[in-house]
This record gives sequence, C-alpha cells and structure tokens, in this order.
Amino acid sequence: MTLWVRFAGGFGVLAGDTVAVHDGDMFGANAPTGEVRTLADTNLLAPVVPGKFIGLWNNFHAVAARTGHPAPTVPLYFLKATSSIIGPEDGFRAPPGYDGKVVYEGELGVVIGTRCFNVSEAEAAHHIFGYTCVNDITAADLFFAADPEFPSFPQWARAKGCDGFGPIGPAIATGIDPMGAAVKVALNGRERQNYPLSDMILSPARIVSLLSREMTLLPGDVIACGTSVNALPMRPGMVVEVSIDGIGTLRNHYLTDAAQVS
Amino acid sequence: MTLWVRFAGGFGVLAGDTVAVHDGDMFGANAPTGEVRTLADTNLLAPVVPGKFIGLWNNFHAVAARTGHPAPTVPLYFLKATSSIIGPEDGFRAPPGYDGKVVYEGELGVVIGTRCFNVSEAEAAHHIFGYTCVNDITAADLFFAADPEFPSFPQWARAKGCDGFGPIGPAIATGIDPMGAAVKVALNGRERQNYPLSDMILSPARIVSLLSREMTLLPGDVIACGTSVNALPMRPGMVVEVSIDGIGTLRNHYLTDAAQVS
Repeated sequence: MTLWVRFAGGFGVLAGDTVAVHDGDMFGANAPTGEVRTLADTNLLAPVVPGKFIGLWNNFHAVAARTGHPAPTVPLYFLKATSSIIGPEDGFRAPPGYDGKVVYEGELGVVIGTRCFNVSEAEAAHHIFGYTCVNDITAADLFFAADPEFPSFPQWARAKGCDGFGPIGPAIATGIDPMGAAVKVALNGRERQNYPLSDMILSPARIVSLLSREMTLLPGDVIACGTSVNALPMRPGMVVEVSIDGIGTLRNHYLTDAAQVS
Repeated sequence: MTLWVRFAGGFGVLAGDTVAVHDGDMFGANAPTGEVRTLADTNLLAPVVPGKFIGLWNNFHAVAARTGHPAPTVPLYFLKATSSIIGPEDGFRAPPGYDGKVVYEGELGVVIGTRCFNVSEAEAAHHIFGYTCVNDITAADLFFAADPEFPSFPQWARAKGCDGFGPIGPAIATGIDPMGAAVKVALNGRERQNYPLSDMILSPARIVSLLSREMTLLPGDVIACGTSVNALPMRPGMVVEVSIDGIGTLRNHYLTDAAQVS
C-alpha cells in the first residue's frame, strides 16, 4: 500500500509523518529524489487535478431502498466542475447570496491511472490507479432554484460545481481493496455518516468499464462513487471530515463569509 | 478582428491561407515568431483545450416558445466531458453498441480569457477572450436509457459527453461582436439550422456574470450558449458543418463504424 500526496511544486509518498519526494509522473515513471520532508511542514494539495471529475447518484442499496428508486444498471452520473476542487484542510464557502442548504456527501473516489476506452470490467480494474476520499458538497437548494414551480431542468452541475465544493484527499492510496472499508463523515468531530462500501451497487471496476463504453478515461480522472444515507446539511463554522480506512481523513472548513475561495 | 488557431506544437493567427505562428500564451503575453505556415499544410486542432466545457439548455426564445418552457433567468447548464472535444475536420462516431439518434446542435461558443469570480455583467464582457463554433453533439436516446419507464435521472453528462461529441473551432475570433450573426448548420452541404444569435435569451456577458457567482471561470473555459430550433439527427457517413460569420466553418465527419475515436 502506497499513499501518494501532492504539494506545491511536487508530489511524493506519505509514510507516517514524512513525505518522500518523488520526481517524474505520479501516474507513470517516477522515482524518489532522496529528499524527505516533514508532513508538518508540507501543505498538502488535492492529490490530483483531474481532467474529468465524475460523480455518481444512487449507487448504494441503502439509498435506493430509502428513496424508492430502482438500483441502476449503469452509472447515473453528473460532472463536477474541476474548479470546485480543494485540498485537505482547505476552507470552502457558500456562493455569494446563497443561504440555502449546503450538504456534505462522503464518498469513495476512484482515480484512473491509464487511458482506457471500451474496456471490460476485468480490464478496468487494471486502469484504476488508486482510491481517495471525496466530499461531494452540494448546494441542495440550487437544483430547482431557477424554476421551483415548473422544474424543467434539475441543475446538477450548478448545485455541485461551486468553488470549494470538491474536496479531494488527503492521499491516493494504491494497492488497497477499499471494499471492506467504511466511509465515515464527522461534523465538528461527531459522526454523522458511516456506511460500508460493500453496499455499493456498481463496483469501481464496473463503473469504469461502463463509463469507458462512451468516453475515454484519462490518467488522473476522478470518479466519486456516490454517497449513502445520512448526507445532511452543514452550518458555516463547522469542520467536516471524510475518513476511509487505508486512505486517511479529508478535513475541510466551512468558512463563514461569502468572499471568494481562492 | 483576429482568428486564433491551434495546431500540434503551437498556435497562431489565421490570415487567409496562412497561419502566423506565435510564441507565448494565447490568453496572455504572446508575439509572432516570424514563421508563417500555409493553412493547407497545417492540421488545425480544437483552438483551445478548456478546463470546463459548459453547455446551456433552453437559451433561445424560439426554442422556449416551441417547447413551452419559460425563458430562464439563470443559465440552465450541464458540463460536457473535456474528453469529448475534437477539432476541425476530425471524425466522430457513435459509442459502441449505441444505435439511437445522434443529434447536431450548432452553437456559439464563448471562450474565457481571464480568471473571474462574482463579476457584474459589465465586468464579464472584459473577461471574454473571443468566440468560436461549437457542435454540441448529443446521443439523444441516452437521456433516459437507464430507466425509460421511471425516469429518475436525466443523463445529460452521459448523452453529451461521448468521445468526439464536442467539436470546437475552427478558430477563436477576438474583437468581434457575434450578436448580429447567425448560426448555420449544414448536413452534406444542405442547410438544416439557421438562427439569429440576436434571439438569445441570456447574452454571453450575462451568462458569464451569472455563472461566475458560483464558480470561478478560468482562461480557456468554453461556454456553449445553447442551440435554437431544428437540431436534428445525423446519419453515419454525413458531413456536418457549423458556420458563424466572422468565425468560420467547423466541419466534422460522422464516421460509420463504432471503433474508438482518435
């Protein structure tokens, strides 16, 4: 198991309290430079800047049972704007003028390692580089904000694409099988979401295979596998943590004013 | 008026049958290198590789009148996968196994020049670099393919994100006001779509301003302003051309087999 992290100007492998700096391409040829940094002195960035940031809806049996929607046989997905991405410990804000619900959604993120198109489920597994934590933050009152009385167009891209609404990290774990783990979300240290990844309807390899039938997936693309029950609103000032055993804890701060997230 | 084009290894300014090669950043500081290529010997690429490829729905009065949807007061948008992008003269194919309708949608594309967040409509105009042609190709039978009898989730990202479904080009025209022009689409040389951009509901500057309230727009981001009436299916083997006066003609080929694009 290897934990890949990124920081300003480089990337490396996290081991305990240190980061072994690497040269090259995280998804290709790379090697340690010999430099070792302390984690305490390293400001981690989102571990990857994807070309595509894909998010699934309705991909856990517990959610489907609660909402009454049938279990999907293909990934039902939206795209999150890549400008929504922030890293560990970063803050996020509601958009200016928005005073509706801002909801956390703790999710497993699949990170693509190699280009693939129209691959089988067995082949797809080999194109997965590793796994990370994603918080698929959502401005829940934006879905039908434009036309609440005659909802012609659910605004998935808008509700989920606001600046800061895509925390990813803290690391990409390679060489793990996350499907025995749980996704846990804590607000101000209090557990609010805790669900087993084994309840997932479409597995990571199946998702990759089915997505690749229509679009080429590229190294660094991130697929958030959907959340399960108990995705709930946050209030400004809160700290939200998404944890997955084997990957780590992605902690972010819901800031209290509406100025720009950098 | 300047027409910016991109080719393998560089970019430049199109003038008649020649391309004046430039050094630097298309959206920042740049200058001619002195090298001039002939257009005939230059394989044009999509003029930009955007971080975000945004597409609007229901943004022309003629469409709203035909469908009965109210004119929106905010951009109703989806995100197209950036891996869908192809350039002038490139071919596209339906995804493997898909035998439903593949529809052209000729559109004006707005290209962002400078980073902006939460800007007014007047400010937004200064953040627009220029304009290009977009063909927002859509696998119309994928919207509800997953659950036709109980349509829980319209699959905008899927229907519009297939490889090859995002032709852009041939150039980005700067220093023009396109709002007096028409968007024309021809199939095999026969005009199929011809609508005035003056019929647009939300103008380019208004779209940029409203989008920027929630997400930062970055240099190179492309916003397709939506199509008007008469977006219709194409058949494999056809040539589709999207033309806008002052920008040029974006020509692409609907290839007949389902192998991988590019």
